[in-house]
Amino acid sequence: MDMNGGPERLVVIGGDAAGMSAASQARRLRGPGELEIVAFERGGFTSYSACGIPYWVGGDVPERDLLIARAPEEHRARGIEVRLRTEVTEIDVAGRRVRARALDSEAESWTPYDKLVIATGARPVRPDLPGMDAHGVHGVQTLDDGQALLDTLADTPGRRAVVIGAGYIGVEMAEALVNRGYEVTMVNRGSEPMATLDPDMGRLVHRAMTAMGITIVGDAEVTGLRTGPDGRVRAVATKDAEYPADVVVLGIGVRPETTLAARAGLPLGEHGGLLTDLAMRVRGHENIWAGGDCVEVRDLVLGQERHIALGTHANKHGQVIGTNAGGGYAVFPGVVGTAVSKVCDLEIARTGLREKDARRAGLRFEAVTIESTSRAGYYPGAAPMTVKMLAEHRTGRLLGVQIVGREGAAKRVDVAAVALTAGMTVEQMTALDLGYAPPFSPVWDPVLVAARKAAAKVAAKTP
Amino acid sequence: MDMNGGPERLVVIGGDAAGMSAASQARRLRGPGELEIVAFERGGFTSYSACGIPYWVGGDVPERDLLIARAPEEHRARGIEVRLRTEVTEIDVAGRRVRARALDSEAESWTPYDKLVIATGARPVRPDLPGMDAHGVHGVQTLDDGQALLDTLADTPGRRAVVIGAGYIGVEMAEALVNRGYEVTMVNRGSEPMATLDPDMGRLVHRAMTAMGITIVGDAEVTGLRTGPDGRVRAVATKDAEYPADVVVLGIGVRPETTLAARAGLPLGEHGGLLTDLAMRVRGHENIWAGGDCVEVRDLVLGQERHIALGTHANKHGQVIGTNAGGGYAVFPGVVGTAVSKVCDLEIARTGLREKDARRAGLRFEAVTIESTSRAGYYPGAAPMTVKMLAEHRTGRLLGVQIVGREGAAKRVDVAAVALTAGMTVEQMTALDLGYAPPFSPVWDPVLVAARKAAAKVAAKTP
Repeated sequence: MDMNGGPERLVVIGGDAAGMSAASQARRLRGPGELEIVAFERGGFTSYSACGIPYWVGGDVPERDLLIARAPEEHRARGIEVRLRTEVTEIDVAGRRVRARALDSEAESWTPYDKLVIATGARPVRPDLPGMDAHGVHGVQTLDDGQALLDTLADTPGRRAVVIGAGYIGVEMAEALVNRGYEVTMVNRGSEPMATLDPDMGRLVHRAMTAMGITIVGDAEVTGLRTGPDGRVRAVATKDAEYPADVVVLGIGVRPETTLAARAGLPLGEHGGLLTDLAMRVRGHENIWAGGDCVEVRDLVLGQERHIALGTHANKHGQVIGTNAGGGYAVFPGVVGTAVSKVCDLEIARTGLREKDARRAGLRFEAVTIESTSRAGYYPGAAPMTVKMLAEHRTGRLLGVQIVGREGAAKRVDVAAVALTAGMTVEQMTALDLGYAPPFSPVWDPVLVAARKAAAKVAAKTP
Repeated sequence: MDMNGGPERLVVIGGDAAGMSAASQARRLRGPGELEIVAFERGGFTSYSACGIPYWVGGDVPERDLLIARAPEEHRARGIEVRLRTEVTEIDVAGRRVRARALDSEAESWTPYDKLVIATGARPVRPDLPGMDAHGVHGVQTLDDGQALLDTLADTPGRRAVVIGAGYIGVEMAEALVNRGYEVTMVNRGSEPMATLDPDMGRLVHRAMTAMGITIVGDAEVTGLRTGPDGRVRAVATKDAEYPADVVVLGIGVRPETTLAARAGLPLGEHGGLLTDLAMRVRGHENIWAGGDCVEVRDLVLGQERHIALGTHANKHGQVIGTNAGGGYAVFPGVVGTAVSKVCDLEIARTGLREKDARRAGLRFEAVTIESTSRAGYYPGAAPMTVKMLAEHRTGRLLGVQIVGREGAAKRVDVAAVALTAGMTVEQMTALDLGYAPPFSPVWDPVLVAARKAAAKVAAKTP
């Protein structure tokens, strides 16, 4: 109840995973008589799976609406007011209100709040280079972005695609475009794709993608895009070469969308994301929460803040925020940096620290790499997999795992994610009671094979 | 070195997973000049995957030798003396020697040892009922057993198979026989198959197996086997009915094979398995180790000893024994009771305690069951899965997880196995950073959905 005895008002900025999870969870705890909920969304959709866009573009998911977990009408039916195509343009922290502009009518108005949730997401990095705004150049962050890319694909006769960047969005988009019959070139600043892996593991991804017919150009800095007289993109230029392109997809990564928050004087971290406490409350602000791609999260292995844009974190944040904003209590302790992706039938997974991260953090470590299979070697369909494991020097504490393989490879990283969360040593991991039967695993699970080798190396290096 | 300056002798009884892993690991640490290793094996094979027998019988694995990880000649090439078809008939603990009989020549002799490894495995339960020794009745514990069953299948024209027992060996053998075109009936003492699950989860297995054309008879006690004048089995009889059978497979479970150990006065537990310390040393005996299916293991959730016959434990035991017998140091802390199996495309997994186990241990708990999918709901191939989770009343400590589903279901239990090992609460599990991408998981992994529901129930029941 507010001071006048009416319901409190919770305002949510951003209608995707974090924002609408928060709204839904708060509604579960507090009925409309106690808590009014208003959500502003700049785009035309709510609660969709941005992570599903590559599969929609690639045709695995036949239509856009399948990506929508909950449409605006469903939220409205639960007593959540949703204002679509309405952009919040200012947060007045002292006055506890937000200003919003309806994109179609351009009408502006202030909405007061008692509690505020900032879930403004992230925006794709779009380098400030000539031609970057040409027709045919696409980020893939929102459903609207995905639709725009599909429109371009439909009205562009050529079949040459260039993906700039080779992170997980890049490789997923490369697969999507291969599936649609495009000749795909990836132009990548790093030496190997998937910079979230160590280069030796990225090299395995490189080889597999090359075998799929994808051309990967490494160590290449894009200098600009060449456009035709019709304003459409024609090629991607680097210092050394030019790659013809009928369509360009940006997969360079994303940055937290915190322009509004910054202008409102809210605390941002060194990666540009909002800083929160464990309850996802913006630091120093009792009645403001933030979650999803616009915040920094605690890396539990490093003990430092990082920015990781991932739907699964956004949903967890929303759940925690909604619980707290609804009068309950919940915390989000942090992440260990788990990510899985696939390109065609290649599965790629990582959790914890890469060699680079460990070195930067001043940690000494042992690294081992092993080859194993997804099932008992004699069982049909046993697929090869490579597991790399990092353990802290002398203590043997697990620091990170990377896996590249075929079917059954990626989700094995979850074992390491839980072990990292629990602070286990690789020696302790060798005794883990993981599920074994020939159709599911060799008698030593690949993760255990890696742990054994890591434990032996730690022991051998300990005087 | 022994007192005379010659090499010590390590004698191993049993040439499969635990015994030969121990021998191999000891050999890695100590060369033949320091340690002589002699392994006795009653059968004709070493180091094979007993767990693979159902897939060999079913035809997924085309030939027997694929199940052999390391043949006797390979062990011999590494300086391990292997005596096949030689049965140890007595352990003289005081005299530090074993008596063995060559099965072919019947010659007997004593072999002294400095260190002894007992890895005598388990034997299938074979109830003392009329007809149990008839031609066509088979256990499937050893490669020799598997060959005998295949010989029966080859020389038996009929196509009706009865599997007695519905544990994991039973369901795997049911699949094998279905794959070979048999009409399969399972006769089971319990109400539902897979008594390693709670009956509500076993019910899901029942339904799926029935849909595969397998007939399951529950609550049925076998009273005897009817045999024909040729001495071959004809039918399996229960109190109420008779089930025609051209072949019968015993899947009632196994017991530790500890006859020798018992006669030698070595300590056995209440399940009939040898009792060891964490280093897998037989309690009270400095120079005798035991591992694999003949020992009891510590259940880390219950804090009690159990008997679990599983190749993955046997391999771990062997590794630990070999390290210790070779002069190193290693321990096997225990198990959490993880097991995975499949019948056709149904995947079945469990770890930790069932309701029955928790009750028997005097633990109060909350149980929840959820339905989810293996991939994002919109992603092709998303398969349904049911996850049941038990959490301790008030504390919320995870007690157990059971999963029944299709592709991608079984190995998800590993997350719970690690969480059990780490002593996590279901509330802590809700924040686990598990790998997420649409081809691999819904945005909330099914294990996390179960953890959320369990945590909510624990909180609701806590005053």
